[in-house]
This record gives sequence, C-alpha cells and structure tokens, in this order.
Amino acid sequence: MNLFYANPEDVSSSFICLRGQEAKHAGKVLRHRVGDSIYITDGNGTRYQCSITHINNDTVDAKVIQSTFEEKTSPEVTLLLGLLKKRDRLEFAIEKSVELGADRIVLYPGDHSEKGRVRLDRVEAAVKSAMKQSLRYYLPEVILEKNLESALNSFTDKRTLIAADETISGNEVAKPGEDGFLLIVGPEGGFSNAEREAMKKRGVLAYSLGSKRLRTETAAIAMVDRFKNVL
Amino acid sequence: MNLFYANPEDVSSSFICLRGQEAKHAGKVLRHRVGDSIYITDGNGTRYQCSITHINNDTVDAKVIQSTFEEKTSPEVTLLLGLLKKRDRLEFAIEKSVELGADRIVLYPGDHSEKGRVRLDRVEAAVKSAMKQSLRYYLPEVILEKNLESALNSFTDKRTLIAADETISGNEVAKPGEDGFLLIVGPEGGFSNAEREAMKKRGVLAYSLGSKRLRTETAAIAMVDRFKNVL
Repeated sequence: MNLFYANPEDVSSSFICLRGQEAKHAGKVLRHRVGDSIYITDGNGTRYQCSITHINNDTVDAKVIQSTFEEKTSPEVTLLLGLLKKRDRLEFAIEKSVELGADRIVLYPGDHSEKGRVRLDRVEAAVKSAMKQSLRYYLPEVILEKNLESALNSFTDKRTLIAADETISGNEVAKPGEDGFLLIVGPEGGFSNAEREAMKKRGVLAYSLGSKRLRTETAAIAMVDRFKNVL
Repeated sequence: MNLFYANPEDVSSSFICLRGQEAKHAGKVLRHRVGDSIYITDGNGTRYQCSITHINNDTVDAKVIQSTFEEKTSPEVTLLLGLLKKRDRLEFAIEKSVELGADRIVLYPGDHSEKGRVRLDRVEAAVKSAMKQSLRYYLPEVILEKNLESALNSFTDKRTLIAADETISGNEVAKPGEDGFLLIVGPEGGFSNAEREAMKKRGVLAYSLGSKRLRTETAAIAMVDRFKNVL
C-alpha cells in the first residue's frame, strides 16, 4: 500500500489535490491512472481513500471515497537532537525516530556540534517520507532552534525532560508530563558544561541507555522507541 | 578513547600485534608513536591497556600494561536477518544492532529477498567497527545461512525464538532460553507462507513492534534493543 501526503489546504471533505513531488510520485513514478484507488493523508490524523479524477503535469486530483481519523498515540514525544556532522547519520536518526513514533523533531547546534547548519528542506522530506512509509497519519513538525538553551526555553512547559546521558547509571522512572516527553540527545561531542548546567536548572532527568558508548543516532532511536513504545 | 582489535592469535598476556587495517589506523590515521598508550580488545571479552613498542609498515606491536576481563551481558541475543536490497540499510541495521548489544548476526536470503548475495567481508568490517565504537569487548560472529529454514535448524537449540510480525497484536511475554533469544526479522517483502509454516513448526513466537509499518532495519534495531536491554 502506498500513502501520499497532501497539504491540509489542498484537502476538502470531498476532493484532494496532490502537488509537487507527491503528484510526480503518483503520476510519473508509480504510473497511476484516472480511476485508480489511492490513499492520502493530510498529516493531521486523517487517511483518505480516494479515486483519481485528473492527472495533470504538476497535480493529481482525487475524489474522496472514505475517510478514517486516527487519534494520536500517547505519550507525545518530542525529540531534541544536536546537529550531527554527517548528514546521512542525522537523516537516518530522524527517519527512524519518525517511524518509531516521534511527534516532533527539534534540532539545535550543540556547543560540541562540529556542524552548525542543516538543510531543513531535506530533513522535512525525510520526515514526510518516514511518515508515509510507516503508514502514520500525523506529520511531525521540524523546528530548528538556536541552541540547547533556547530549545529548552521553548519546550519545557508541560513536558517531562529527559536527556540521554552515558555518564550516569541507573534511571529514575519518569512519567510523561501533560504534553508528554522531551527527549534530549547531544551531538557526537556530547554536552558542554554550560549545556549540562542549563539542563540541571530546568530539572532535566538523566537517562542511561546502558554502560556502552552509543553513537548519537543510535541513542536517539533507542530513546524514542523506549519512551514512546516500551517503558 | 580509541579501541583497537587484535586477532586472538596475535594476543599473548604480555604482547599484542595489530595487523592490517588496525595497524594502519593506529599508525597512519591516528599517527600514534612509540610509547603511546592505546586500548586493544581481543573480541573475547578482554580489554588490554598497552604501550606501543614498534610501528612497522603493516604492523603495530604493543606491550600489555593491564588487562580487564568483562563478562558477557545476558540475555545472549542472536539476530537472524533477511537480506535487504540496499547495502547501506543492511549495514546500518547491523551496525546499530551490534552497538545495542547483539551477540551474533545470522543473515539469510529470504524467499522475498530481492537480493540473494551479500559481501560478508563488508558486514564483518561493519560489525568490528561497531564493536570498537561502542567500546564492546566481544566481537559478534557473522554467519550466512542458505535460507530461513536452514538458519532455524542451526539455531533453535536452547534459544527462545521470536519473530517480528506486523500481522499480530499483543505479545506473549517470553523468557530467554539457556542460550538467550533468536530474534527473526524478515526482508523488505516480509515472510513467505513457507517461511511462516517453518517458523510455526519450530514454535517461533510472534512479536508485534506496534501497529505501524516499520522498515526492516528499524524492526531489527528495535527488536535487539528491546530484548537485549529493556523487556
């Protein structure tokens, strides 16, 4: 089954228009024809079963046959991830986190990040692709913050804050806040002293993923799976 | 901290010889000098703190200062993974599984695998690199089986067999066998009916990772983390 994404403004209760890459994927890559049945999500929890009515150069129009709404799964999980040096490892961490249910991705250049910039369009494309691939119907938002402290300022309300920390052992059992968890993962170089201090002030709990050294992307994936699905 | 790997036959209680890529990495890439202190593992549970005595063209000799033996962590986890189409996704799954503690990697071309071959030397290099990167001291063995059934024949003794299965919901709680778990993950195309039948005969338990569709490499990573570390 293939799932397509339509911007919410292109979705009504009876008709949906796919644009850009989504239209190209449906029409040119998968060679769908008028009359074909496809699935589309608006990224806001609804899946639409549709029948294609027009295929144009840049758009694909579809009639809604049936729609299904799905509640968000709790706890809500926001992943706060330091920028990594290698693009493929960052995108992999994000793709896997979304597959495993992360609801929001917040990136920041950490004091020890070797790279300060990221192409948000590529990250957003990876997020969209992972949502469709895993048949999720909520599109996680992607936010770039200036640094860890500004990210903490933006997301501390009503969330339980937990940082992956290889320097501790043993874990406090943490309950999600009203808005779930904020899971904090540092870049390859780990957290700076200033960042540790800022987290301490905010009451961030330290969580150990085990005694072994994990790469950043591995820590991010394991954190999301554990707090979203297992613990 | 950098960790190097030496073949057990090059390890004695007082001297160790690094060869090939390991020697090159120590001497040429990291530019170590005679007298430098380095860490070496034999992949059998021991970490050696050493001092470099000679740097030659293809070898690095080191004197053992101190050695530390580490017990294997239980449960023992063997990952049985169908061959994937894309090499980078297969190697990523293996790298992450080793970081998270998989003790053995068994690969098989599934009935629905699009690719029947794999370069074992590359997989072994990925395993070795992940072991060193995560500061583990046991080198997981890598085995290529002919198909799922032959793999099941080789590894059913004294293991609890669990397959990642998206078609079920709810999970039986499984205890590890005397030799731990055998975690079975299919290729992209999933299991064939014949494979499902073979697993049923062997008493393989089905485990659901959640209601959403996960890519094979995501399922492998989550299975290893859950059964090795969390459940």
